[in-house]
Amino acid sequence: MKVLLIGATGTIGKAVHARLAQSHEVLTVGHKDGEFQVDLQSKLSIQALFEKVGKVDAIISTTGMAAFAPLNELTDEQYQLGWQNKLMGQINLYRVGAGFVNAGGSITLTSGMLSEEPMVGSASISAVNGALNAFVKAAALELGDSLRINTVSPIFVKETMEMMGMDSSTGMSAANTAVTYQAAVEGVMTGQVLDVRDFV
Amino acid sequence: MKVLLIGATGTIGKAVHARLAQSHEVLTVGHKDGEFQVDLQSKLSIQALFEKVGKVDAIISTTGMAAFAPLNELTDEQYQLGWQNKLMGQINLYRVGAGFVNAGGSITLTSGMLSEEPMVGSASISAVNGALNAFVKAAALELGDSLRINTVSPIFVKETMEMMGMDSSTGMSAANTAVTYQAAVEGVMTGQVLDVRDFV
Repeated sequence: MKVLLIGATGTIGKAVHARLAQSHEVLTVGHKDGEFQVDLQSKLSIQALFEKVGKVDAIISTTGMAAFAPLNELTDEQYQLGWQNKLMGQINLYRVGAGFVNAGGSITLTSGMLSEEPMVGSASISAVNGALNAFVKAAALELGDSLRINTVSPIFVKETMEMMGMDSSTGMSAANTAVTYQAAVEGVMTGQVLDVRDFV
Repeated sequence: MKVLLIGATGTIGKAVHARLAQSHEVLTVGHKDGEFQVDLQSKLSIQALFEKVGKVDAIISTTGMAAFAPLNELTDEQYQLGWQNKLMGQINLYRVGAGFVNAGGSITLTSGMLSEEPMVGSASISAVNGALNAFVKAAALELGDSLRINTVSPIFVKETMEMMGMDSSTGMSAANTAVTYQAAVEGVMTGQVLDVRDFV
């Protein structure tokens, strides 16, 4: 399959790339690096990306920014970052990208476990993830079999935790996290929130 | 208790007013009607509301706009209505209102079952509701016992369904829906998504 991987230069994205490249043609998209570039927060930038890339069999997003900060310190701008970047940016990948996915293909977004298992500082991110989970469930109802849409819900990635000086024992490696993205692309599910812990 | 009811002139709001007014002082807020007015989409309008009203024991929101439309017809503006009005507007009721709630008080928002039980046309509303559900779960972690925050998740209201010419047999009356708002104000729960079907 021809797979467009947005967020390919991130920690999860690199692992997804390494895993999928064994059996698929993977086109890498980053904010500044990668074969193609996109600004997730700009629908025009997303449109320009797809016009360059053309038809694919699968779109994977492992990207999207939202702010992690104490509840009483979150600013208007930080909330908007979540709504406009990780949330609307990924919804726009579906809205623009759907027309570029071959019949029977799939779109896989990324939410995260903080919606169901919040922590101090996660209020904005939790909200964004909860929105994405509900969105794919609802959107799948209207897409039928022509286009599958799912979201992968990762837990903390070990490599990220180590980079931040956290105890990484509760995390999952990026390589193991990538297993779920492969399942989403090669499987038949749609409208699902895929908990990475169910796939390793 | 002194209860500030935002959305008091709506179908659910009127029923919540009728029920709570039996044992509490209810201040009614509408977009155009009610004792006080607010534009939920404007943080300045919310600030002006609380400066007029002063301290209360509970804030209830039974309001918030989001678009119901086929997935492939939802416009940028319709998505933004959901993020900026029903989602950010209600989060701003918390952000601004928290400082006006007496110790031990509560804030009760409104999401809806379409996050968990989507239907054709609900993608934007489902996402907004999912975000609100996750937000209160996360926010409660940082509020402790000083301020409770919950969201009520109504199913379709019978009166609304009848007004729209729908079969209302699967709906719940506004009066029965109001029971859950009373439970949220008078109870001790926090960080909960209150399914109205669990309270009647």
